[in-house]
Amino acid sequence: MDWNHAIAANLAAVRARRPLVHNITNYVVMNSTANALLALGASPIMAHALEEVEELVALSGALVINIGTLSTPWIEAMFKAGLAARTRHVPVVLDPVGAGASRLRTETARNLLSQVRPAILRGNASEIMALGGVATSGARGVDAQHTVLQARQESLRLARAFGMTVAVTGAEDYVTDGRREARISNGHALMGRVTGTGCTVTALTGAFAAVADDAFQAAISALVVFGLVGEWAAKQATHPGSYGIALIDGLDALTPDDVRVGARIVVGTVG
Amino acid sequence: MDWNHAIAANLAAVRARRPLVHNITNYVVMNSTANALLALGASPIMAHALEEVEELVALSGALVINIGTLSTPWIEAMFKAGLAARTRHVPVVLDPVGAGASRLRTETARNLLSQVRPAILRGNASEIMALGGVATSGARGVDAQHTVLQARQESLRLARAFGMTVAVTGAEDYVTDGRREARISNGHALMGRVTGTGCTVTALTGAFAAVADDAFQAAISALVVFGLVGEWAAKQATHPGSYGIALIDGLDALTPDDVRVGARIVVGTVG
Amino acid sequence: MDWNHAIAANLAAVRARRPLVHNITNYVVMNSTANALLALGASPIMAHALEEVEELVALSGALVINIGTLSTPWIEAMFKAGLAARTRHVPVVLDPVGAGASRLRTETARNLLSQVRPAILRGNASEIMALGGVATSGARGVDAQHTVLQARQESLRLARAFGMTVAVTGAEDYVTDGRREARISNGHALMGRVTGTGCTVTALTGAFAAVADDAFQAAISALVVFGLVGEWAAKQATHPGSYGIALIDGLDALTPDDVRVGARIVVGTVG
Repeated sequence: MDWNHAIAANLAAVRARRPLVHNITNYVVMNSTANALLALGASPIMAHALEEVEELVALSGALVINIGTLSTPWIEAMFKAGLAARTRHVPVVLDPVGAGASRLRTETARNLLSQVRPAILRGNASEIMALGGVATSGARGVDAQHTVLQARQESLRLARAFGMTVAVTGAEDYVTDGRREARISNGHALMGRVTGTGCTVTALTGAFAAVADDAFQAAISALVVFGLVGEWAAKQATHPGSYGIALIDGLDALTPDDVRVGARIVVGTVG
Repeated sequence: MDWNHAIAANLAAVRARRPLVHNITNYVVMNSTANALLALGASPIMAHALEEVEELVALSGALVINIGTLSTPWIEAMFKAGLAARTRHVPVVLDPVGAGASRLRTETARNLLSQVRPAILRGNASEIMALGGVATSGARGVDAQHTVLQARQESLRLARAFGMTVAVTGAEDYVTDGRREARISNGHALMGRVTGTGCTVTALTGAFAAVADDAFQAAISALVVFGLVGEWAAKQATHPGSYGIALIDGLDALTPDDVRVGARIVVGTVG
Repeated sequence: MDWNHAIAANLAAVRARRPLVHNITNYVVMNSTANALLALGASPIMAHALEEVEELVALSGALVINIGTLSTPWIEAMFKAGLAARTRHVPVVLDPVGAGASRLRTETARNLLSQVRPAILRGNASEIMALGGVATSGARGVDAQHTVLQARQESLRLARAFGMTVAVTGAEDYVTDGRREARISNGHALMGRVTGTGCTVTALTGAFAAVADDAFQAAISALVVFGLVGEWAAKQATHPGSYGIALIDGLDALTPDDVRVGARIVVGTVG
């Protein structure tokens, strides 16, 4: 399979179909992820009221659940929306922000995995390892303390246990659906200096999940596209404020041809 | 009446008087609308606690209610603040974000209309039509599926029923108080690629409502000024990230003279 | 003591140690203060759930409490986190946004002072005077109506009563721990045209409190550094949108040498 071509086609499909992506996400990134989705070519809606999440899920091409600033009423909405999405076969993308840093986050993310059954789990290495049951003492807020490759075994285990795709982001990204695995080396170090870039790629994954053939393709499409955008932005800006703005610009500027030429991805079968 | 001159004078008045604008708005746009109000020359306060909204309304020149990420406790605060504003004759501007997309939004907006009696309702065509009772099946999240002119009859009906000004924004904007109507053709397509530009013009309408002679003037002033800012920003930036920043810059850069020269508005009496 | 040198050393220490700063802050500035902390070199976490704040405080080098968009559940979390921080000797920085504008804000801030015992209180002149018991009739939302020097007596009184450092920001900044006092004249007028710059310097104060020798040093370090960043940003941008982005860039660009050369601070003993 020509993965570069497939990812480029997925980018074109997002722009042609403008999928509606329903986000139940954290306060910090509501604005930046809505702007990222719009710049990519998708259509975001941010909504968390128990009274309306089921109706909005029914209109949406994907649901993104992000636990970055969770609290009890929001957790209820995440489950209600997530179960509605599961029933309607709307793909769910889960971002377990800070799993491992507090029991509330670890347990909420685990319960969402088992009950909502997301199509895609996207986290950093420490979050994925915490969900896999690895004791991550020394968890340090929302930052990863482990490398992506340290998380490979837990990713495979989680992917197989829940029948989902797991995407682990870091200096190099790793994606597996339990059968295939991909390593993606697009991206730029400045992305880690802007708040919520992990949340952004999760939101973008929602847009790709609404148009791609399967969850594995959606996850690698989002990671390659945002990685290339990160490289593009580093040509526009050298400090994190203007770099964050350039990331949004780049989501609009990047073309399917840029993807075909620039994607640095290796896909294989799990040995 | 020389409308270009009147709008320019309203811009000068906002800068001279720096009205305090109390916003009960959605999480996505709290930062961007606060910055827009500051850049225009007004003074924003964002507050939603039941215990304090009445006190803050009493200090304010206008109240902006935006239902973009509503939930039950926020709805209570919207009514409490709105009723306090009605009692004190503080003008209220209502943005019914997503009306038509969920029952909660449609009903909340309708109840706010009938109980709070806003001076100005600002929405896109689909939102206004949903509030007017037109079945908007195919409502698609927070995006308009109808043209502004399709919403003209419902705008007139709503304006007359509630004694308010209705502002419908789109490629061309339409404003009516039931007796007069205006068409405004300032603006730029890139505005639709930045999240919350509709919410921004609603917030700016609050600033103008605090200084203008009447609600109709306030609404057209905000639409013309922000439309001109959208044109100015398109000379600074071509992608949505930097364009969004240029919108804030433009609210500071635009002069009353720019308004006199650039306003593209036609006002008439409803035939 | 060579204060310029000490402040430069504190900046280097933040970058070397990357302290985790736990923020319970307002919706308006969550994104911008997280980005400011990251750009400075610290590591932010934003979290407010009652179930997790104690765990997160235990991981953190400082706790920042900002009452800008407070409501009852958030106030509970502020006390729970604040008391945990007090027990564990994690320094707390309090920003009493809008104290004086509503009873809820004034009383919440006073109760936090007496029960949580923050290491540092950072506000504008009107907020500090309201907390000191000066009737601030004419309080105007979140904007200061008084000069920093008008707040000097109340600052000294509060600093001594609560054994804390008080930092009052304005055209000139004033800091006292009841024994020493500092006047800082770094900064730029455009900072007041960007929403949440006061909240930003409070968040930065949290980063410095995690590494500095004492609270007084932490407060003056944050004010000098952010003031210099404000001057740097004014060379990059003349309108508030791009100026706000330049503030984030500057937090990354500023070097300890820039601090040694540029700090404009006078420190003395209270006479």
